[in-house]
Amino acid sequence: MKDLVQSVELGVSQRKRVSGLKNELVRVGLAESLCTYVMMVFGLGSVAQVVTGQGEFGQYISINLGFGLGVAMGVHVGGKVSGAHMNAAVSFTMCTFGRLGWKMLPLYVFAQLFGSFLAAATIYGVYYEAIHDYCGGNLTVTGPKATAGIFATYPAPYLSLITAPHQHHHLTHSVIGTAMLLLCLMALSDQKNKPAAAGSEPVAVGLLVLLIGISLGSNSGYAINPTRDIAPRVFTAIAGWGGDVFRSGNGWWWVPLVAPPIGGILGAGLYKVLVEMHHQPEQKERLVEEFEERLALE
Amino acid sequence: MKDLVQSVELGVSQRKRVSGLKNELVRVGLAESLCTYVMMVFGLGSVAQVVTGQGEFGQYISINLGFGLGVAMGVHVGGKVSGAHMNAAVSFTMCTFGRLGWKMLPLYVFAQLFGSFLAAATIYGVYYEAIHDYCGGNLTVTGPKATAGIFATYPAPYLSLITAPHQHHHLTHSVIGTAMLLLCLMALSDQKNKPAAAGSEPVAVGLLVLLIGISLGSNSGYAINPTRDIAPRVFTAIAGWGGDVFRSGNGWWWVPLVAPPIGGILGAGLYKVLVEMHHQPEQKERLVEEFEERLALE
Amino acid sequence: MKDLVQSVELGVSQRKRVSGLKNELVRVGLAESLCTYVMMVFGLGSVAQVVTGQGEFGQYISINLGFGLGVAMGVHVGGKVSGAHMNAAVSFTMCTFGRLGWKMLPLYVFAQLFGSFLAAATIYGVYYEAIHDYCGGNLTVTGPKATAGIFATYPAPYLSLITAPHQHHHLTHSVIGTAMLLLCLMALSDQKNKPAAAGSEPVAVGLLVLLIGISLGSNSGYAINPTRDIAPRVFTAIAGWGGDVFRSGNGWWWVPLVAPPIGGILGAGLYKVLVEMHHQPEQKERLVEEFEERLALE
Amino acid sequence: MKDLVQSVELGVSQRKRVSGLKNELVRVGLAESLCTYVMMVFGLGSVAQVVTGQGEFGQYISINLGFGLGVAMGVHVGGKVSGAHMNAAVSFTMCTFGRLGWKMLPLYVFAQLFGSFLAAATIYGVYYEAIHDYCGGNLTVTGPKATAGIFATYPAPYLSLITAPHQHHHLTHSVIGTAMLLLCLMALSDQKNKPAAAGSEPVAVGLLVLLIGISLGSNSGYAINPTRDIAPRVFTAIAGWGGDVFRSGNGWWWVPLVAPPIGGILGAGLYKVLVEMHHQPEQKERLVEEFEERLALE
Repeated sequence: MKDLVQSVELGVSQRKRVSGLKNELVRVGLAESLCTYVMMVFGLGSVAQVVTGQGEFGQYISINLGFGLGVAMGVHVGGKVSGAHMNAAVSFTMCTFGRLGWKMLPLYVFAQLFGSFLAAATIYGVYYEAIHDYCGGNLTVTGPKATAGIFATYPAPYLSLITAPHQHHHLTHSVIGTAMLLLCLMALSDQKNKPAAAGSEPVAVGLLVLLIGISLGSNSGYAINPTRDIAPRVFTAIAGWGGDVFRSGNGWWWVPLVAPPIGGILGAGLYKVLVEMHHQPEQKERLVEEFEERLALE
Repeated sequence: MKDLVQSVELGVSQRKRVSGLKNELVRVGLAESLCTYVMMVFGLGSVAQVVTGQGEFGQYISINLGFGLGVAMGVHVGGKVSGAHMNAAVSFTMCTFGRLGWKMLPLYVFAQLFGSFLAAATIYGVYYEAIHDYCGGNLTVTGPKATAGIFATYPAPYLSLITAPHQHHHLTHSVIGTAMLLLCLMALSDQKNKPAAAGSEPVAVGLLVLLIGISLGSNSGYAINPTRDIAPRVFTAIAGWGGDVFRSGNGWWWVPLVAPPIGGILGAGLYKVLVEMHHQPEQKERLVEEFEERLALE
Repeated sequence: MKDLVQSVELGVSQRKRVSGLKNELVRVGLAESLCTYVMMVFGLGSVAQVVTGQGEFGQYISINLGFGLGVAMGVHVGGKVSGAHMNAAVSFTMCTFGRLGWKMLPLYVFAQLFGSFLAAATIYGVYYEAIHDYCGGNLTVTGPKATAGIFATYPAPYLSLITAPHQHHHLTHSVIGTAMLLLCLMALSDQKNKPAAAGSEPVAVGLLVLLIGISLGSNSGYAINPTRDIAPRVFTAIAGWGGDVFRSGNGWWWVPLVAPPIGGILGAGLYKVLVEMHHQPEQKERLVEEFEERLALE
Repeated sequence: MKDLVQSVELGVSQRKRVSGLKNELVRVGLAESLCTYVMMVFGLGSVAQVVTGQGEFGQYISINLGFGLGVAMGVHVGGKVSGAHMNAAVSFTMCTFGRLGWKMLPLYVFAQLFGSFLAAATIYGVYYEAIHDYCGGNLTVTGPKATAGIFATYPAPYLSLITAPHQHHHLTHSVIGTAMLLLCLMALSDQKNKPAAAGSEPVAVGLLVLLIGISLGSNSGYAINPTRDIAPRVFTAIAGWGGDVFRSGNGWWWVPLVAPPIGGILGAGLYKVLVEMHHQPEQKERLVEEFEERLALE
């Protein structure tokens, strides 16, 4: 009887482990999708409102606030379940530095793309009349009444003159923006330094994104997030803006995909090498270390 | 003697229970009225200041801040007494998800209407000269010097062209705004996720309302609150703007009454289904669950 | 010997009590002066910068932030020593509701006037060239290049047309602004409701002042603080603007002195009557109360 | 054997002390450099974006936010390692009041200069095309398309008319700005008063810097930080703006070097004399004091 129970228990715990893993994936995927969706609805909504409002319903700083506070709300929504990366460059950097298993990366990327695409569709629905009223029904990527910039990033006009061989300029801008993002994210979560106070992390991360928009945003709409960028770009290609969304800016579209992961590793790495590696061990760790050293001497 | 005391005690406690309930209703009703009043004085005041100031005393973002911080102060005022819903869609959603008894709904709605109406009267008093100076004494709902928008929401011009059969557009906008509000409110108060830090809830909810104004506000003055909308509308109908406040925008007035409760349930439901339902039980709950499972097997 | 020591001790403790009281007055007075000075340098500085900058160095919202964050810094500076009222209407209301001894009121008022006067002189010094460059050396109270409004409040043009018999309009505006200030201050410090989180009081009070500027500020530069108003007004009368600072706006100068104390008592009283009085006693207090009731019955 | 171990231990601990000191210097220097770099990239970036964006990518308040939030992020990055002064006037004042050893001052100054210089180079790289597009490739210090103000502070035009004998005007402005900075920093960290809540120091300091920009910034781009000023000035002299960066404003360049340390000591000293010195000793300290007094009497 006891044996039977044990073997049944074993079966149950095995089944539970398998279904637990599946549940865990569903749980994390749904949360990551929902928080990305929330962040993007608020972010894209603020751009749509500023562009179609022509100065009457907010200015550039409204967009900075829209993405900044949008990220803060996203962190509240996804927070303890998926970590609320909402950005493939963040997920990629977390994998690189061992804070997330590589196996989870595809799930995160897919969830972010899914949430981001749905948000683009939602904002197009909400601002459908406003967009068509603004541009006279002519959905364009460039020109004075361009509206594609509501959904994805495009380089500033003075950057779009750069010819293909100098595309590394674009890359550099995007790399630096994402490097600053990850460098500061590392500091905000470093418990041996001066991290964001417990409970205030969502707002702290939101202020960081607001700051990047204020300081490093004008060149190209702060292209620091691959999944945030490509999904709405694909949406606009389908919804009526056409292939120009990929041709514009000398084929700029791939920059926000390639640069952020590089920048993320660079920024997080810099913080690790210049600050984190030099943290002194806590009292207890230090005693253990000294004891081992003494032992080695005897 | 002992029996007498007991029966008297019983009487006292019964009387106390009845008067306690009555007291409780008065207590909650007064707090809900006062916090709604505070929120609305600040909110409507900020619109009045921007409209009559013609750019000199604030811009659109001042209105976002006025309602956002007004909500934060309202939560401080009503906070632990009534919960400071200040919005019938919030109260309705709380009832639907069992966080408030349905019996309390009429009290909340009435208190909110009362506070909201008084706030409209207060702001009309404070800005009486400013409004009459601005519009030359001509109180209108539409046109370049319209002032009804200080008190209630109206659809943007490009939306008012929509004919009656397409009124569902209006509904959709309003539904989505309130859905985002309740979705994030659920996250901000979900203790198993990443809620607002203890004590910072008022500011967190304020930032959420600020964000909705920045991202989803231009279509129709973010119509996400039925009680905030109808009471000042009735006030303006009486105070001199007349029946146009109901006719304007193809009879838009009922949209802010019907859409928010739908949106509220949609948003809160989404959060429940996609995040809250998947929360893993705490260690202790898990042990109990496993123990019961084992028992069931034997 | 022992007697001697005791009598000496008594003398010491009496001397200490007297010198302790004197020290206490100095301590509180200096802190109240310094925090008022800090608040006013930041507040007046932000107005000076916006007025003389002509749109290039900030807009109306910068002034709201200047006074809001200035108040926050003032609370950090005076905080636990004097309570950082920085406003005679606040001190007066605190005395009325028993939170400050009436004997202390003159000290608070004097300290606030002193700090406020010094701040006006400091800002005139710092912005001397900017002010003279802006107005061509012609220091006026009204007209397109008026600069007196940097230092004290004046009614908006449409309000200055009001003739003397209707001065109660002015009073009403000022009363309501200060009532909202004190009503919310009471809520922010009510430990049985939803007060500002411990440590975040300075920022919470700052956001409240920011909000009043955004919502109730355009009529008359939010005249909610007597000591903040009269000291810089006297300074400008001396420094070159002359007697117009008292004649302007049909002799408006006395309104910011009389209205705020009335408003303060009204607002704080409203909160007390509508919310604070209805707080249920804590569990322990309730048991004591019930016990006494039972005793009374026997 | 035991003796051997002890003498070896002594050697180890001596070696450790020496290498510990060296490590400590490297550790602090790297952190101070990195946090200054982070603050300056965000700060200078926000100026570059506003100047080259010509009103489309932010306004003056974006610069206030850029430096304010930049300082907040810098405190998160350097926080517990170096204290994140990011300003030689802060380090100098800390040394004067015994909170930092004078031996450490050169290290702090050098680290700040290094981080500041690198940040100037980074922002020139990121905004290279934007700057050249804006000014037509003509890098000037004055005139309508001047761009040197992106990197270092220059006096407002009405101040540059001041002739050399009146340069003390410049000094006064700069002294007062830095005095307010240090006065408030002292209050924010005074644990016997109302300091910034634990964990919220970075944001509190950021709001202070934002406030100084809003209130005391227009005269000369708030010149309150010597190391933040001179390193980017030298960078621009090398990078193409030439010797004008030192000649402009009647040789203004030395003011931001000399005035802030004076202001820092003045402001921190004022707080000490007017508030900190009067703090009453804690209960325990008071008992010890009274006991000693009684002993002295016997």
